[in-house]
Amino acid sequence: MPLKNDLLLRTIRGEQTERTPVWLMRQAGRILPEYRAVRDELSSFIELVQTPERAAEVTIQPVDLLGVDAAIIFSDILVIPEAMGLPYEMVENKGPYFPQTIRTENDLKKLRVADISENLAYTPEAIRLVKQELDGRVPVIGFAGAPWTIFAYMVEGTGSKTFSKARAMLYNRADMAHQLLQMITDSTIAYLKAQIQAGADLVQIFDSWAGILPAAHYHHFSLPYIAQICKAITSVPVTVFAKGAYASLPDMRSLACQTIGLDWNMDIAEARKVIGPDKTLQGNLDPAALYADFATIKKLTTDMLNAFGPRRYIANLGHGVYPDIDPDKVRCFIDTVKEHRHH
Amino acid sequence: MPLKNDLLLRTIRGEQTERTPVWLMRQAGRILPEYRAVRDELSSFIELVQTPERAAEVTIQPVDLLGVDAAIIFSDILVIPEAMGLPYEMVENKGPYFPQTIRTENDLKKLRVADISENLAYTPEAIRLVKQELDGRVPVIGFAGAPWTIFAYMVEGTGSKTFSKARAMLYNRADMAHQLLQMITDSTIAYLKAQIQAGADLVQIFDSWAGILPAAHYHHFSLPYIAQICKAITSVPVTVFAKGAYASLPDMRSLACQTIGLDWNMDIAEARKVIGPDKTLQGNLDPAALYADFATIKKLTTDMLNAFGPRRYIANLGHGVYPDIDPDKVRCFIDTVKEHRHH
Repeated sequence: MPLKNDLLLRTIRGEQTERTPVWLMRQAGRILPEYRAVRDELSSFIELVQTPERAAEVTIQPVDLLGVDAAIIFSDILVIPEAMGLPYEMVENKGPYFPQTIRTENDLKKLRVADISENLAYTPEAIRLVKQELDGRVPVIGFAGAPWTIFAYMVEGTGSKTFSKARAMLYNRADMAHQLLQMITDSTIAYLKAQIQAGADLVQIFDSWAGILPAAHYHHFSLPYIAQICKAITSVPVTVFAKGAYASLPDMRSLACQTIGLDWNMDIAEARKVIGPDKTLQGNLDPAALYADFATIKKLTTDMLNAFGPRRYIANLGHGVYPDIDPDKVRCFIDTVKEHRHH
Repeated sequence: MPLKNDLLLRTIRGEQTERTPVWLMRQAGRILPEYRAVRDELSSFIELVQTPERAAEVTIQPVDLLGVDAAIIFSDILVIPEAMGLPYEMVENKGPYFPQTIRTENDLKKLRVADISENLAYTPEAIRLVKQELDGRVPVIGFAGAPWTIFAYMVEGTGSKTFSKARAMLYNRADMAHQLLQMITDSTIAYLKAQIQAGADLVQIFDSWAGILPAAHYHHFSLPYIAQICKAITSVPVTVFAKGAYASLPDMRSLACQTIGLDWNMDIAEARKVIGPDKTLQGNLDPAALYADFATIKKLTTDMLNAFGPRRYIANLGHGVYPDIDPDKVRCFIDTVKEHRHH
């Protein structure tokens, strides 16, 4: 069915639009009491991710409750390791934990390239339900983690300030690192294609731990795998969000993607200069700005809109919305974008 | 007494030297079995910090065991909150934890500007012992956290990926934030002066959480307080290390400090261009590079030395050495610097 609101897709194509589209990373999640009610009915975060009906329900909530211009499928980047044979737990208030990790060739041998229909059908199924339910109201965004970020968790086993074990492998077993990164990449391409097949109108790649790599390693161990994914996905637009990849922004210009996400530390004018005029930019209000009062949120959002300008720009935060932000502050951000007109 | 090895100080003054000086952030610490032996005799990390004889002992270990060109006093940046009236615990494998935090004006009222001779005499005393024991073999580096980084811990109460509670205060109680930052700054200036009085030959300011602030906030809530400290310390050279402050490097040029520390993500040529020729640079090998084999460490270290060039440069890592690094790998890094000659 045709989209009733295709503002996001027209913006990505570089068309002149009536206003700037807006959505938020992590918009489906703990900020909404309606999400927490669903979550409380289930035994775990992972059960919610793996139950298409409920994942679909929380995906649609921010469209109804906040008025965003896109739905992003409720899921988790770590479904890929899970489908490759490395299960994880989500520890409340602590984050992901992998009982087994990948450190040796033997560990690597136990992994498989994910068979999506076999091991990861729940997310495409959730997208199918969302598309049906939304009936074209807004586009649906599919997503996956970037191979480096997924690799970091699979080797380290948890979140980490340094990811020193994951980064050690880049120095002392680069061959193994590339093998694992390629398996993740192949799994991710199959996964994103299944999401598109199920109806995703665009996809986003999250490189959450880009910022921890020295530039030379980022060029060697992250960007080539993101580039493979961008090349493989030809039927819908691709967004790449590499948090903290300041030194690598110039290289992202040559990725076969349509949109680059900016984190809240990235300078808007500088990023536009470095990325050039041919890609759409997305971001980048400091998520902590939504702790401010309404007038300040309006001012900061308006400043951001003016800095990015009217074309090839999607309003968003510079990272996921923090779970304890008042939904009314989120609405203030969204409404400010929707009411803004460039002169 | 005059220093026998004043290579570090001559380099900071911009003199031509026979070779590049080298030391490592966190060189006194868990990488050395000799450190762990001392630590195991005491009940806690904080007890070690507060016991001048033992702090002095572990400060000198890397001079004897690794051959570095400077000793950095063994201490912790969080002694400042402790001395201001906000005690903390160091939870093994987890990091610092403050039972009370600063969130309200009432919390703020309970704090005092640190009285160093009353509440923080142990670190200057440890420096006195180190100076005595070293007898001029190498210079001694004193240090403190940057006010923003100390503030972040005092408000948040623990380490955090987002420091969202600390950053919330910058948006919704900027007045309180400035009050607290000024109290921290006044405490820090007194503390650094006491360290210098005790014999510190130079001091370093660590802004570990610089990278989490948007540039506008960094300019407003961090740099002015660092600038105050730099201006107040006139008798010895000052080094400023602001991890992740990419967007703010140009502004650091105007700080009244002699040396700028670079993290491992900062591009060497770019940093030199931005900082200009009048300051010494320090850094910035990826700490994870010391997981590599000896030949790779030599190569990466040599590449770094050539990139920085022979003048106004102090070899170091781009962050603290990771605790599980083999001391022989650290020695390989140090020896490579010491044997290197620029052609």
